[in-house]
Amino acid sequence: MSDNTHDPTNDPMAIRALALACRDAAQAVAALSTDAKDALLHAMADALDADADAILAANVEDLRVAEAKGTGGAMLDRLRLDPARLAGIANALREVAALPDPVGMVTRRETRPNGIAIERVRVPLGVIAMIYEARPNVTADAAALCLKAGNGVILRGGSEAICSNVAIAAALQRALQAHGIAPAAITLVEDLRRETMVELLRLNDIVDLAIPRGGEGLIRFVAEHARVPVIKHYKGVCHLYVDASADPDLALDLLLDGKVARPSACNSLETLLVHVDMAEAFLPRAAAMLRERGVQLRADPRALAHMSGAVPATDDDWDAEFLDLVIAVRVVDSLDAAIDHIRRHGSDHTEVIATRDEAAAARFVHALRSAVVMVNASSRFSDGGELGLGAEIGISTTRLHAYGPMGAESLTIERFVVRGAGQTRNLKHAPAS
Amino acid sequence: MSDNTHDPTNDPMAIRALALACRDAAQAVAALSTDAKDALLHAMADALDADADAILAANVEDLRVAEAKGTGGAMLDRLRLDPARLAGIANALREVAALPDPVGMVTRRETRPNGIAIERVRVPLGVIAMIYEARPNVTADAAALCLKAGNGVILRGGSEAICSNVAIAAALQRALQAHGIAPAAITLVEDLRRETMVELLRLNDIVDLAIPRGGEGLIRFVAEHARVPVIKHYKGVCHLYVDASADPDLALDLLLDGKVARPSACNSLETLLVHVDMAEAFLPRAAAMLRERGVQLRADPRALAHMSGAVPATDDDWDAEFLDLVIAVRVVDSLDAAIDHIRRHGSDHTEVIATRDEAAAARFVHALRSAVVMVNASSRFSDGGELGLGAEIGISTTRLHAYGPMGAESLTIERFVVRGAGQTRNLKHAPAS
Repeated sequence: MSDNTHDPTNDPMAIRALALACRDAAQAVAALSTDAKDALLHAMADALDADADAILAANVEDLRVAEAKGTGGAMLDRLRLDPARLAGIANALREVAALPDPVGMVTRRETRPNGIAIERVRVPLGVIAMIYEARPNVTADAAALCLKAGNGVILRGGSEAICSNVAIAAALQRALQAHGIAPAAITLVEDLRRETMVELLRLNDIVDLAIPRGGEGLIRFVAEHARVPVIKHYKGVCHLYVDASADPDLALDLLLDGKVARPSACNSLETLLVHVDMAEAFLPRAAAMLRERGVQLRADPRALAHMSGAVPATDDDWDAEFLDLVIAVRVVDSLDAAIDHIRRHGSDHTEVIATRDEAAAARFVHALRSAVVMVNASSRFSDGGELGLGAEIGISTTRLHAYGPMGAESLTIERFVVRGAGQTRNLKHAPAS
Repeated sequence: MSDNTHDPTNDPMAIRALALACRDAAQAVAALSTDAKDALLHAMADALDADADAILAANVEDLRVAEAKGTGGAMLDRLRLDPARLAGIANALREVAALPDPVGMVTRRETRPNGIAIERVRVPLGVIAMIYEARPNVTADAAALCLKAGNGVILRGGSEAICSNVAIAAALQRALQAHGIAPAAITLVEDLRRETMVELLRLNDIVDLAIPRGGEGLIRFVAEHARVPVIKHYKGVCHLYVDASADPDLALDLLLDGKVARPSACNSLETLLVHVDMAEAFLPRAAAMLRERGVQLRADPRALAHMSGAVPATDDDWDAEFLDLVIAVRVVDSLDAAIDHIRRHGSDHTEVIATRDEAAAARFVHALRSAVVMVNASSRFSDGGELGLGAEIGISTTRLHAYGPMGAESLTIERFVVRGAGQTRNLKHAPAS
């Protein structure tokens, strides 16, 4: 598809026309009532159900191409749809419909001494470009959340999922049309050449925000080429620090949940830091438990002494997002040494302390700048649903606008609405009367 | 100064070392208590007072160079300090000290059904690069607001004010040192070559936000070269729309205050739109009033018919930020025509409607995406102080993070702090006990 130079959509400038159409449609979306948006989201879910056969057939084609290319198992699994997964995607849209509408929310009110009344009101961002990789569910999820927040969305998924994405987008756009909204409100980019993505990322007069989600290479590419604002969803090198005062059983629970339950998730643990006074009591049990679950242990010399079956950690292991059944383990001399390690090696995503010492917890929270800091709770709660946002478009590691899990509200912006009775700032009298 | 190739600070890579030092110092600033920060701000103000002679002498040198270059009156006026202005700058720091501290503010609390307690807490952004032009007061104002919000700041002012900026920064840094904070927390870039600014704008592993304030050329340059997040403070093409139902006297007040009181401000009016039914009653009075104040009138054909002394407007006038005693005037057939004009020509800054019709006001507010929308109040209230923020670092026209006047709170970000009692997400039992 990306080699078809006869396709008129393969003109890189055509992306500008697509984006302009999306912006026009976004104005109509921004004006929709909450009820209208929620009805639309239900219609989108119903359209996915109705098109299930076509979407699954398209997905089979994507899988066939991927297998022919020798794509590996984890990637194939992310790409694969089946009736249950597709029903889950449709139901996720119905759940987005049930969320509160962030648009129009008045977040603050104030009347100034001169009588002007000021409101801060949430309005949509405008046009959001979503840049992602192989997971076709993102096509529906991102479209739904952007639409809930009154925005237009330009979806640029990976080539591996292009047939699935085209089929899903067709269903969603049919629902838009049935509700009198231009299908461009949910625009799928089918020209997947890099230069077209670069062109999209340079449309800073049209696109209000780009959200890249995927591997390090994709994020770096977007950050390098974008002239539109970018909120990065970068890697999660998440730490569990087991303090000298920790409850060892509680810490083992956090370790097991954080490392083993879903190692491919960005909120899973990659590094375990253990206070030296806790090492002897904690590490042998941790090692036995993790080995039993097939976790590979990479330990610094002091941890190695307490962890049978571990191999020595290399310098690179402290910065690695393994996304697999691997964990790096280090013994630290103090809370401050743990903080220092996380400051050097963390990715600002999620950090956890297990402790019974409130002062230590407070210092850990205060000293670290990560988006999410947990005290005696699993890193796996670093998720929009678990943190009460309802659904998430991703987890921001950019320290601007939104930091951590981003829900529908993060796809809006507060602006000022001021109401007066003719107040002026510098006039000393009413000159006209 | 910018030609001194023997100065070691003229190595563009030296900016990286400066920025790293600022980031280290920013960690210390982030950890300061509210009282410590406020004491520091008072010490900074006192240091400006103590160094008044040196700062004013440095300013005389800047003025001498500017005059020798043939710099114009408005620019010279922005550059000029005198004892009263300098005292005003010092007092502005004391006012920043009196503002509420945004850092540590808990904006939301929620306990989930599983018992984890979630707080959203404001933390500093980190390191802010402020890029600005000739006004030396920005050096002190921006430093104070960044510090209040727990940030480090890298100040890159214009070459016209370099001597003044060096003298001001020296005073501020002395106050930092006296309080045990590394002077790098307020870093002034003295190497003013463009390639050094580009290098600064590419330090996306160190700088969390760049804020350009100045002319269109500067903003475009920063937007083009930055790899760090940017919040633009772009032009204000602000509109007053006089509705068919407006109180003409009220509308004349808003017009006079908005156009004449301080035409060089970005929140002053540039375009007047008048409903056709109001044209005959309103425009002759408006024309007489504005002419009397020396305002040049540029009118479309229908407005021209009612405005003696006006000249025909050109197409460019509708997009112009005159920043001067000039106004563009157009008669429109309807509220929707006014909205359409503003959507085409506005800069998302500030728009005003004069109306007695609540439905018209609601439609104007709802249909426009500008950062500030006023109903029956002067555009000149689009200012951090007037809108209750206390002080502002500028007025954002970027629709992300902060939109409209930005105060200290806009220099922080909400993150998640979660407290539990060992909760896990996927464990079915406590495996360790």
